[in-house]
Amino acid sequence: VNVTVIGSGSWGTAFARLLSVNGHAVQVVTLTAQEAAELAGTRVNPRFLPGVVLPESVRFVAVADADLDDSEMIAYVVPTQAIREVAAWVATRRSPASLQLSLAKGLELGTLLRPSEVIAAVTGSPAAVLSGPNHAEEVSRDMPSATVIAADDADAARRLQAAITCETFRVYTSRDVLGVEFCGAAKNPIAIAVGIADGLGFGDNTRASLMTRSLAEVTRVGIRLGASVETFAGLAGIGDLVATCTSRHSRNRLAGELLGRGTPAAQVPALVGQVVEGIPTTYALRDLGRRFGVDMPVIDNVFEVLENHRSASDCVGSLMKREAKTEFGG
Amino acid sequence: VNVTVIGSGSWGTAFARLLSVNGHAVQVVTLTAQEAAELAGTRVNPRFLPGVVLPESVRFVAVADADLDDSEMIAYVVPTQAIREVAAWVATRRSPASLQLSLAKGLELGTLLRPSEVIAAVTGSPAAVLSGPNHAEEVSRDMPSATVIAADDADAARRLQAAITCETFRVYTSRDVLGVEFCGAAKNPIAIAVGIADGLGFGDNTRASLMTRSLAEVTRVGIRLGASVETFAGLAGIGDLVATCTSRHSRNRLAGELLGRGTPAAQVPALVGQVVEGIPTTYALRDLGRRFGVDMPVIDNVFEVLENHRSASDCVGSLMKREAKTEFGG
Repeated sequence: VNVTVIGSGSWGTAFARLLSVNGHAVQVVTLTAQEAAELAGTRVNPRFLPGVVLPESVRFVAVADADLDDSEMIAYVVPTQAIREVAAWVATRRSPASLQLSLAKGLELGTLLRPSEVIAAVTGSPAAVLSGPNHAEEVSRDMPSATVIAADDADAARRLQAAITCETFRVYTSRDVLGVEFCGAAKNPIAIAVGIADGLGFGDNTRASLMTRSLAEVTRVGIRLGASVETFAGLAGIGDLVATCTSRHSRNRLAGELLGRGTPAAQVPALVGQVVEGIPTTYALRDLGRRFGVDMPVIDNVFEVLENHRSASDCVGSLMKREAKTEFGG
Repeated sequence: VNVTVIGSGSWGTAFARLLSVNGHAVQVVTLTAQEAAELAGTRVNPRFLPGVVLPESVRFVAVADADLDDSEMIAYVVPTQAIREVAAWVATRRSPASLQLSLAKGLELGTLLRPSEVIAAVTGSPAAVLSGPNHAEEVSRDMPSATVIAADDADAARRLQAAITCETFRVYTSRDVLGVEFCGAAKNPIAIAVGIADGLGFGDNTRASLMTRSLAEVTRVGIRLGASVETFAGLAGIGDLVATCTSRHSRNRLAGELLGRGTPAAQVPALVGQVVEGIPTTYALRDLGRRFGVDMPVIDNVFEVLENHRSASDCVGSLMKREAKTEFGG
């Protein structure tokens, strides 16, 4: 299969490597010609995926030079807020038969649309989604991982599964595009909340409680949107939540940890060094909660910390002290 | 409230401290008079809870010298396989009005009964259960934690909640005694599985996938038993699962890690230094799965490792390579 991977961050690079190892012809679209030349020359992405050597068969091409004529699969591995612009670029170039796949985990600010919705609106064709507990640092080292591909068209999902699955990267399929994609977005603000608690010096009990209460809160919103509840119990739900909230690889958790230690929100993205999807997604989720009248105490508290309305310790303290009698309902 | 805590392991000691800080009169029942004298003299439990000073108001008494005449609450904080013997001791001594509460996390071998079922059968009175993400090392240091108390009698649950909850240890109530107790038991074999993967050097993606697939598998059995599905999504379910599978405090995860590194199963309990509830529970869960005809690949693989039928790497490998098409059903 001829594949185009758009984006050369850590996940784009690891995903391109995975597909190449699977025997596909892969081109990676980079932002600049200089970046494409460096990656092609060194076969290493020192900024985003240090220590991983990329197969000779992976080609790198700048967006200004790339064409999509032969691409049977187009994977979007770019920040969520760039999806619209990238989709517009794809729309005028792609072959109508190509499959589109989004690996972005977020919600578009303002519209509150999921990446696959933006792609479908802009290109006029559906996009499948891939989401799960998949730290690029581990996938690129062939450590066993599993993931979910969801598509409205079951045949498209099966074709993507067949191209991507292998012994160390198991792909499961789902029909719940909305749920899988919503889970992928929602876990990032939760990871920020968990990171804040970590940064304040709280322990594993606090983290586990916070993850549980947060999952319940985003599940309520997801179900109002139309997600299937079982998706939240699966790899794209708690699987990715666990991987993100408990791993040293997670930049969203790290962003929270910096906030918990008192770093001003404005300085966090630069210190993390990569896009922190959970920051815009916190704003988007808060808007969604308000639209549906769903109480979101964890998301609201992350928002307060990001906006410097209250201190991190104030916010986590108020979360842990919330009055509650029964765990469910009431 | 006059409280008797039976058991002076890490959780018994931490729980006694918590109740004492909450203003209750607490006696801890130890196995030997020597242990009672040492704890009373030093106010420290160096073997199970080093570094935590116990309030002067906590009394320690050996089982041979203890009476339960004034005890309004009796907490069982002993290994699951000792519950029947302890309940028989309690049965002849307790006041009929006393509330019984089990903190044990396991299933009785042979009968496959939950601790509260054993207590009810032996004493003729019901027992409430307390379960959640509660590492003793953190609760005893007043790090924010949350938990669930479940009882058939809602009034008993509320009375226990009122006695135990405080700012740093939030108690939620539930009516799903079976579900809360089953979750507490089931997470320990899962933690062994996760520890095995850790010991083999696998990463955060593998761990998250394994936790997700394991939770799905024990949820199927729990629902067949009559547990409520939402309990699995709560503090006693994924909350405790996360705390146990990702914490350096968990002895079950540590037991798995030793197995993953090739330590013979017979040597593991001595190396861990405390009871590893997940080992007997693996056998009990496997029996339960067979009774209900539920496929339990993770539990079966932990059993194989414990029985030295196959190597740890063989077992985890076979789990990750299992053929599966869709995530749910099929």
